[in-house]
Order: sequence, then structure tokens, then C-alpha cells
Amino acid sequence: MVKPSIPKGTRDFSPIEMGRRNYIFDTIRKVFKKHAFLPIETPSMENLSTLMGKYGEEGDRLLFKVLNSGDFKQGVDFDKLNSNQLTSKICEKGLRYDLTVPFARYVVQHQAELAFPFKRFQMQPVWRADRPQKGRYREFYQCDVDVIGSNSLLNEAELMQMTDEIFKAFNIPVTIKVNNRKILSGIAEVVGEAEKLTDICTAIDKLDKIGKDKVCEELLERGLSQQAIDSMEPFFNFSGNNNEKLSQLAQIFASSEIGTKGISEIRQMLAYAAQLGIDADIEIDITLARGLNYYTGAIFEVKAQNVSIGSISGGGRYDDLTGIFGLKNMSGVGISYGAERIYDVLNELNLFPDDINTPIKALFLNFGEQEELYALKGLQVLRNAGIASELYPDKAKIGKQMTYANAKAIPFVIMAGADEMAENVYTLKDMNSGEQQKLKIDDIAKRF
Amino acid sequence: MVKPSIPKGTRDFSPIEMGRRNYIFDTIRKVFKKHAFLPIETPSMENLSTLMGKYGEEGDRLLFKVLNSGDFKQGVDFDKLNSNQLTSKICEKGLRYDLTVPFARYVVQHQAELAFPFKRFQMQPVWRADRPQKGRYREFYQCDVDVIGSNSLLNEAELMQMTDEIFKAFNIPVTIKVNNRKILSGIAEVVGEAEKLTDICTAIDKLDKIGKDKVCEELLERGLSQQAIDSMEPFFNFSGNNNEKLSQLAQIFASSEIGTKGISEIRQMLAYAAQLGIDADIEIDITLARGLNYYTGAIFEVKAQNVSIGSISGGGRYDDLTGIFGLKNMSGVGISYGAERIYDVLNELNLFPDDINTPIKALFLNFGEQEELYALKGLQVLRNAGIASELYPDKAKIGKQMTYANAKAIPFVIMAGADEMAENVYTLKDMNSGEQQKLKIDDIAKRF
Repeated sequence: MVKPSIPKGTRDFSPIEMGRRNYIFDTIRKVFKKHAFLPIETPSMENLSTLMGKYGEEGDRLLFKVLNSGDFKQGVDFDKLNSNQLTSKICEKGLRYDLTVPFARYVVQHQAELAFPFKRFQMQPVWRADRPQKGRYREFYQCDVDVIGSNSLLNEAELMQMTDEIFKAFNIPVTIKVNNRKILSGIAEVVGEAEKLTDICTAIDKLDKIGKDKVCEELLERGLSQQAIDSMEPFFNFSGNNNEKLSQLAQIFASSEIGTKGISEIRQMLAYAAQLGIDADIEIDITLARGLNYYTGAIFEVKAQNVSIGSISGGGRYDDLTGIFGLKNMSGVGISYGAERIYDVLNELNLFPDDINTPIKALFLNFGEQEELYALKGLQVLRNAGIASELYPDKAKIGKQMTYANAKAIPFVIMAGADEMAENVYTLKDMNSGEQQKLKIDDIAKRF
Repeated sequence: MVKPSIPKGTRDFSPIEMGRRNYIFDTIRKVFKKHAFLPIETPSMENLSTLMGKYGEEGDRLLFKVLNSGDFKQGVDFDKLNSNQLTSKICEKGLRYDLTVPFARYVVQHQAELAFPFKRFQMQPVWRADRPQKGRYREFYQCDVDVIGSNSLLNEAELMQMTDEIFKAFNIPVTIKVNNRKILSGIAEVVGEAEKLTDICTAIDKLDKIGKDKVCEELLERGLSQQAIDSMEPFFNFSGNNNEKLSQLAQIFASSEIGTKGISEIRQMLAYAAQLGIDADIEIDITLARGLNYYTGAIFEVKAQNVSIGSISGGGRYDDLTGIFGLKNMSGVGISYGAERIYDVLNELNLFPDDINTPIKALFLNFGEQEELYALKGLQVLRNAGIASELYPDKAKIGKQMTYANAKAIPFVIMAGADEMAENVYTLKDMNSGEQQKLKIDDIAKRF
């Protein structure tokens, strides 16, 4: 018999892990709902025609493809095709790679039923055939929130406000880094390399990881002139507070219309944010690019302070996401929260609430046939009061039952034998202090 | 541009459908938790070696298989293999077909970390390449609850109690049909066909659907003697209340040890159930077989009264589910609730709570630059009070904003222009009655 196992990069979640994960999802969901975002869900499988070509060549490779049912071999000339070509012949469906493309597909498919601006959130697993490593999984959850069909910068500010509320609820101090794609366009323009914008974004996005020198090397490789690269220098060393940064930029962008537009968008967004009373640090970072070509306006990235973990959230504005499915002029803005990263930060900072570790509050011991009926009565009272509790189902040795209570970290054990039954009470034992007390069941219920 | 679509048999869920589905999941989860069952989750993909051969030949065919990543073609001789044989060469993983086999795999794999009896619930989607039809999907949710590692019949009674609580919470009157596999064994024994137990169970399971005559035909085809079939007649026409049925059975099973054991198990289970105060109708149905070979004791099936929809829940006791993965002597009992069926019943009986249809409680209209800042202040007060509310983000025509409120079924619209700002009030408009009133924002918050 082979020892059972699961595919690499996937995970089982134990009750305690589930408690912690649900704490994360519930906290985020509560904020989304208060802000009038509504949930949708899309199928785990999408047609490969929906997914392919949307994530670049690498993304196409990392999609999990689902084999067609039935006699998939029929009519396929295996000899003439390589693995790549074969895939499209024998697989029509693939597992969701992210929540963004399915959302765009959803909006286009259901446009007639939707009221715009459409504010939705979505919390579902996604799958990527990435090489598994610490903190990177082949099945993981994304929590995405988007407004589509509105150009107002109030939406950007609201996303920042929700981010602030979410991480305040978690007690995680964060910095929200902001930028605007139009500022990146402005930089490309003033250094005379407007047509190299994508290359500049891709390279500059790595500044944090590889440093300025390597970024400059990459820019050279990508065909930027040495002169342009030299004139980008000042942007790497931008300092001061947000207002100072914006003033400096305004001077540099005097001749750049798009750069100037970027500045005014950031100013308006920050003015709204100030109005909303956001406590998190907001920091303009003009090198923030997030490597995603579909962003056209604001760009966000959230970092936990005092923890050396990458960004725990990110997003931005896209003017034409649904264009790939034929619906033009539908600007949206969204942000995605990474459940796995947030889990790691909460864990490292020891911020998970204690009571997640004790989902079951009380165990009634089973002393025998008559006693168990009496225990059932008490159990019913606790459960009616909404207290998660149980009766040990078997008439096992008391030592075994106590071991069970300890293994499950149940904080209270309730015992009732002949004496208690005669007095119509129950003995409540605190498993931490060892203290025990005879009480009426209603008084026990009040303890929780 | 092709109109975007999703794979057949799969579904998108809109916000209203999500609200209804979450109402179902939340109601069930609340009962599970109160009864000290804890959640686990397993990966969507399992190794095919875990799944294959567990659901019969038909099941193997209905599994969705995931194509291996990379150059799957290498080293595979396509010409010599048919589609079936090829599958095992080019696919190592498959999508979860149910929650039972992954649960058994989980228990065996994690046995060292678990405290037994282990009480878990699991609510996750499963996938089957079934032919899609009304009410049957290729991706659907199961809600399973099981106790494993306890022989006590208290567990059976607790499952019935939870079922009762769940459907009471839904306001769906149900009948819980119960049987015991040992009674079916007793019947097979007394008609002289003990070795044909599986055939008898498979045929008798269809009694509801195809009627007695067809069942007898099928029994004959399956090789039972005409004499045995004739002597089964009385079992098809069993009547009376539960006690009467048990008394009749006791006489018939005088010579059958296993049949007698079945009766005593049902008696004990019903005695516990009586103790727990279950309101649902409980009906012994000795033809209830559920066609599942792994059941060894109690068998359950739940039917909604007054609705012509099949069973909405079912389960039973299995003495050796984990045996397939090498862990012997681990008896368990569980029940599964079908979210899709429950959805259909709630829908047909019009039992979904009204407020699911109005997830957003109030919309602030956007009258312009100054007014929107004043609206934001009021909005913040409502949100701080936990009221799901929003401000229309764009400075659009009021007609358009009202259309938006109507399309989203938002029950209240809040307006504030120069007059309201001067008086520090907001005008609250009831969208149903059309009534409107000037109020302080705190007084508006109290309305919800």
C-alpha cells in the first residue's frame, strides 16, 4: 500500500489553519461588504480560449490544462505535433490562473444584467504550474476587489481606505505605495524614450530586488540610449515627502502633458484619501511599475512595516481590460489581497486572535449510560446558547477522554456522575488552572 | 471576436445567487460548529492514484484529469495506446470527485496529528464530467460532515439532530428516512440469498423510481431465484409506524443474527434521537439502500416534504473507508448536504430571507464637488455603524444615478445639496414608498 500523498505545491488545511484562514477571509469580506462591494464567483475551469494569450508565453505554460473527456485521441495526429501543439487538440479547458481575466470575461458576458459602475469582490483559489517553493503554491487564494465602469478617482481613494481598514483590523501597520502609469509615461517621454515605456516599466519594477546598477544594465540591454539612462538617474533617487516629490515632478514634467496628467491624478486621489481619514502611511514611489501592462492610471502596492516579506497587496487602474473580450471603454480599478502572504505576516507577528486556537469551548465527559443522558441535557443548553461543545461519544476510560480534550485544546471539561445528577449540577473543570466547580448548567453557559 | 462563454455544466454566480448560496453555507456551518465539528479543506487536485478505482468504472470515466505540465509527450508511445491507456501516461492529477475519498486520504495521511474521534466538516466544490442537465452540474458544492474513530450510535443521533436543526433553520419540513445495512443483510439472509446482498441493494435502491415490478425483474436478471424474490414481497409492503415495523422485523429476523443486530442498532439510535428532541419526522424505510457499498450500519436519506425533488441529504456508517489507504478499524459515520438541491427547494418554496435581495442598504447621490465631500462624511457614519452603503462615484445625471439605485434594488437613497449642508442634515428617500425626510445622519444610521 502506497502512503497517501497530495500533488506537490498543494496543501491540506487542518482545523486550526482553517480558523486562521477564515479569520483572514472574514475580516477582508466584512470591509468589502461595508463598502457595498458584492461577491461573485466564476467556475474553476474556463475555456482555454478565454485564458490563453492573456498572461504572456510564461503564463500559457503555467496554466493547468484539463484533458478532454471521452476519446480525446480520435482524429488527432500525434506524430506530427509537439506537446504544445497537442495540448490545444486534447484540452479545451484550463484551471483559473487569476481572478482578473475571469472577471473581465464575466463583465462582458453578463453586461446586459449588470448595473455600472459594477463593484464586485471575488475570493477564490487560482492554480499555477509554478515550481513550488517556500511560500509559493500551485493552488492558492486571491481576494480581488474591483470597480468597473467609473472613471472617478474616488474609487482609487476608496480602495486605499479599504486597504487601511483591513490592515488596521489585522493590526498590521502598512505602507501604501502609490504611483501612476502616466508618471512612468512622463518619465519615458522626458528622457526621450516614449516608445520604450514597456521596457522601462519592466526593468524599473525590479529596482527593489536588483538595485539601480542592474536596472540600468537591463535598460541598456533593452535598447535605451546611455544618455536616456543617465537622465533617468534623478528619478531613482527621488526623495522628500509626497508634496515635495510632486513639486519636483511638476517642474520636470512642465513639457510633458501625460506626466502632468499623472501628477494631477495623484493629487486628486490623495486629496480624496485625506478626506477619508486614512491612517496608513501613503508613499509616492515613482519607480513602482508592477510589470503589468494593462495598468493605465493609478498603481498600488502595500507593504507590511517591520516585516521582510514582499508586497501583501497590489493593484491599479486599467482602461481596457474588457477590450480583450470585445467590450471597449470600460475603465476599472482594483486591488488584490494575497491571503497566503497575509497569513505569513500575521503568523510572524503573532497577531492571530487567541480564540482561533480553541474553536471548541467545552467537552462533557462520558461516564456511562445514565450519565451520558444527563450530559446530553446539559450539552443541549450550551449549544442552544451558541457555545461550540460536545459530549465524548464513547464510554471510554476517563484518561483517554482527558487526553482527547488536551489534544484538541478544549479549555473546559464538564463532568457529571451520580452526585451531580442528584444535585442537578455539573462540575466545570478549567483545563488551564485545573480548578473545578459545581454549577447549574445555566451558570456554566454564562461563563462563555 | 468570439462571444465569451464558460464550459458547459459550469456556472457564474451573481451577487444575488452568492447571497443565497452563502445563506445556505452559513446556516449549515453554524450548526456544524455548534456541534463541535471543525472545518478542513483538501486540494482541488488529488493524485489520480488516490482517486482512480474508488468510484467504479463509471466514476473513473467521469473524473476530470489534469494534463501533466511540460513536455508530456516525451517517452509516450501514442500509437500503441488507446485514449484510456494514454490518460494514465500523460495525466498524474485529477479534480476531486467527492469529499469522501479525499477525507479518507486526509485521515490516513495525518493520523498522527489527529485526535480521535475526529469530527470534521468540509464544504468544497467537486467536479464530474457528467452529461450536464437541469439541476446537474459539472462543478458543484458538497457539504460533508463526519465523525471517524467512534462506534457510538450517539454519533448517528447527533447527525440526525444536526439535520433537524439545519432544516428547521431553513423552514423546510423534512422526513429523515433511516435504515441499517444489517437489516438489508438480514433480508438477504432470510430469503436465502446472503451472497447476493450487493445485487439486492442495487436493485431495491430503485424502488422509488421504477416501482416494485421492475425491481423484481431486475432481481431476477441479477440471478436471484423466483422463490427468493417472492419471499421478499412482504418487505416491499412494510407498513405501520416505526415501532410496528421493528416488531414485525424482529419476528422475521428471529433466526438472523445480523438482522437482529440491525434492529437493535436502529432501536438504540432512535432512543438517542428521542432524547435529543428531534422534531423532524423519522421514518424507517427498509428499502433504503443508497447503492453505496461502503455503508455497513445506519443509512440516512432526507426528503423535503411537499416538494417533488429527490433527496436533499444522505449518509451512513462505514466501517472501513480508510482501509483503502491502509488504515484499518476506523469506523465512521457521516452525512452530506447537497447545496444545489437545498437551493432549489428554498427557491421553490420561496423561503430565502428577503434581505438577501438588498445587500446594499443605501446609496448617497453625487451632486458635485462640494456635495460629494459632504456625502462622504455621512457615508463614513453609516459604514462605521456597519451599514453596507455607497456614494455614486461619478458626478453623473441624477436620473442615471436613480436608475443605478433601482437596478441594484437599493432600498434607500440619501441626498444632500446646499440646503442640507447648511442645515447639517441629509434627505433620506425610501425607494419603495417614495417618502422622503430630512434627518441628522445619526438618526438615519438608527433606521437600519
